[in-house]
Amino acid sequence: MCLHMLTIYLGHMKLYSLAAALANITVTNHEVTYDPDTSWLKFHLGINRYALYSRDDPTVLQLIKDMQSMTVISAVVKPSGHHLKLALKMRNLAKAMFKPMRQQRDEETPEDVFYFVDLQRHNAEIAAFHLDRILDFRRVPPVVGRLVNITSEVLKVTQNEDLRAVFFTSPANNTCFFAKCLYVCKTEYAACGSPDLLEGSLSAYLPGLSIAPRISIPSPWIRSYTFTGREEWEVNPFYCDTIKQQYPYNSGNRLLNIIDMSIFDFLIGNMDRHHYEIFTKFGDEGFLLHLDNARGFGKHAKDEMSILSPLSQCCMIKQSTLLRLQLLAQSEFRLSDVMRESLQEDSLRPILTEPHLLALDRRLHKVLRVVHQYLPKESTERICK
Amino acid sequence: MCLHMLTIYLGHMKLYSLAAALANITVTNHEVTYDPDTSWLKFHLGINRYALYSRDDPTVLQLIKDMQSMTVISAVVKPSGHHLKLALKMRNLAKAMFKPMRQQRDEETPEDVFYFVDLQRHNAEIAAFHLDRILDFRRVPPVVGRLVNITSEVLKVTQNEDLRAVFFTSPANNTCFFAKCLYVCKTEYAACGSPDLLEGSLSAYLPGLSIAPRISIPSPWIRSYTFTGREEWEVNPFYCDTIKQQYPYNSGNRLLNIIDMSIFDFLIGNMDRHHYEIFTKFGDEGFLLHLDNARGFGKHAKDEMSILSPLSQCCMIKQSTLLRLQLLAQSEFRLSDVMRESLQEDSLRPILTEPHLLALDRRLHKVLRVVHQYLPKESTERICK
Repeated sequence: MCLHMLTIYLGHMKLYSLAAALANITVTNHEVTYDPDTSWLKFHLGINRYALYSRDDPTVLQLIKDMQSMTVISAVVKPSGHHLKLALKMRNLAKAMFKPMRQQRDEETPEDVFYFVDLQRHNAEIAAFHLDRILDFRRVPPVVGRLVNITSEVLKVTQNEDLRAVFFTSPANNTCFFAKCLYVCKTEYAACGSPDLLEGSLSAYLPGLSIAPRISIPSPWIRSYTFTGREEWEVNPFYCDTIKQQYPYNSGNRLLNIIDMSIFDFLIGNMDRHHYEIFTKFGDEGFLLHLDNARGFGKHAKDEMSILSPLSQCCMIKQSTLLRLQLLAQSEFRLSDVMRESLQEDSLRPILTEPHLLALDRRLHKVLRVVHQYLPKESTERICK
Repeated sequence: MCLHMLTIYLGHMKLYSLAAALANITVTNHEVTYDPDTSWLKFHLGINRYALYSRDDPTVLQLIKDMQSMTVISAVVKPSGHHLKLALKMRNLAKAMFKPMRQQRDEETPEDVFYFVDLQRHNAEIAAFHLDRILDFRRVPPVVGRLVNITSEVLKVTQNEDLRAVFFTSPANNTCFFAKCLYVCKTEYAACGSPDLLEGSLSAYLPGLSIAPRISIPSPWIRSYTFTGREEWEVNPFYCDTIKQQYPYNSGNRLLNIIDMSIFDFLIGNMDRHHYEIFTKFGDEGFLLHLDNARGFGKHAKDEMSILSPLSQCCMIKQSTLLRLQLLAQSEFRLSDVMRESLQEDSLRPILTEPHLLALDRRLHKVLRVVHQYLPKESTERICK
């Protein structure tokens, strides 16, 4: 059965070598039994060169339901600076990344905090998945909110010593855990339950890198991760002309995909998109994954126009993206309304405060203003200057 | 003149060897000129085996005034984990430690935060000096609040490269600085001006260690700096019986001084007194310095009775301390009223919120309740059991 499923998997995704995939399944087969009809496997099988899932794929609904309800069988704390992440394994090879709540919904990023030291917000991770789906990109792996009992559901089910080492009881008798210590253990970064219940986001894992390799590519519009540095795109208004000449941005849809990503990031207010990932086996035409969106939705009152630089400097946009944005600017399908309704499905609702929802409408209009400013009416999906 | 002053200094304090002191003065003399009539030198000369300053010493008033107004001539960032401290030098060998504001007056320590990772509060440092003076201990070096322009008064006056390396401009265009990086620079710990003005506490430096050596001794009631550990004093109700047998607590006033310190710490709510310091040259009878009080005043609603363990386990108290506490429990000299009035002198007033001031009265009554519970009426300054 394993091999049968594997053949389908291989045939469908055309992502990997049989040997590598077999090696992977052999190892996991010793440890767990799995049902080929699982939502994870079906999700992985459904990934294609255009998107992570198709528009009306029932698998995603099942995956969301499973992530909300499946029993955790083991947990691993991921080393990640001071960010808190737990990789949770469920039955049938199901796996999700848990990011705990770090701040209240109405707390905003302090004005003096740089984008690269901002906290990660579990609700931003959830909201970004919904927005990506509403924009019809389908480049964010499914994310759900879940109230987890970190003692009985996480700590007690795992024998992992690394994990046990980061759990502690706070002075208020709440169960807490902190990031895997790279240098010094920082309990001030801990996330704490009340006393054991802690809400967080669960993001569905993609197929393992040995099965479906991905590469991480620096964004051409990467920011300077220093206090004073400026990147070329910030000072050269003709920067895109250079990029347009360079591989892989000189042909195909890669640059248009970068512009899609910049619109997505502008809407969520994410300044921290230093790299993007693609599945290698789809080649240069594959879609861009929109992973790690937890630094979005930090400041509802701030529209960071520099995030839109790929759009405003290259002045091109996919027709399908533009049409979707125009649709969501209409009063019948107002983005904030669609988002509000979509986010109501999540068990941790409300996911976003009203000011953050309304900011989406304001930002959407700003995107369209940029488009109309630079693009002649008839010009879509091509360079306008 | 140097040698003349030095001789007086030596004769008065009897703290050091002539050679060491001469070496110290020779070095500093190359760099600065100083006036022997400065408040710092007079403060240092006034230190004796009983206290840092005498009750009505006009030097302290002058020192406070000088700390508030003197021009900074250089600054050094002190490595201190993630705590932010700048050593500021003024003319005439004047030196003070600057601790910047990290949280608002009405912010409380979150309930899940351990005492050893709590932020340091500049206003707690200021308030602790006033309380120590009101309690007639005079074991805290003078502290004042000051609004400092960290750009013009600190950054621009110093050529120190280490200092420049920790200054940066925040996304909101405020001038900020972070702690000297031991491992990774953590801008999320930064303190920021508005845009350059930042309030903080200035604590007067004690004489240098080469002139007046001090030793740091672990408190017998030290806490376990781990998540789960318990120290013997926490589980053994007869712990003090053991301590009373041990040098240096088996004679003289050292144990009574420890008890004074525990009362002081209980009143300010400081659980972080792991060590205490004494001037070595005063011998075993010298007073205990109450340094580093910035983790006090974190939770106005919490009275941490374990801090009083030295008092409740040893059941002894100095008569002078008890009389002072009883005085401050009377309505004419209510501790909160005396503190409120005293703190009004500071330029950063209000230093403490009303709930923190009122907590002092409540805690004072709890101290007296412990005293009356364990001590027979006539028994002071001696062991009661």
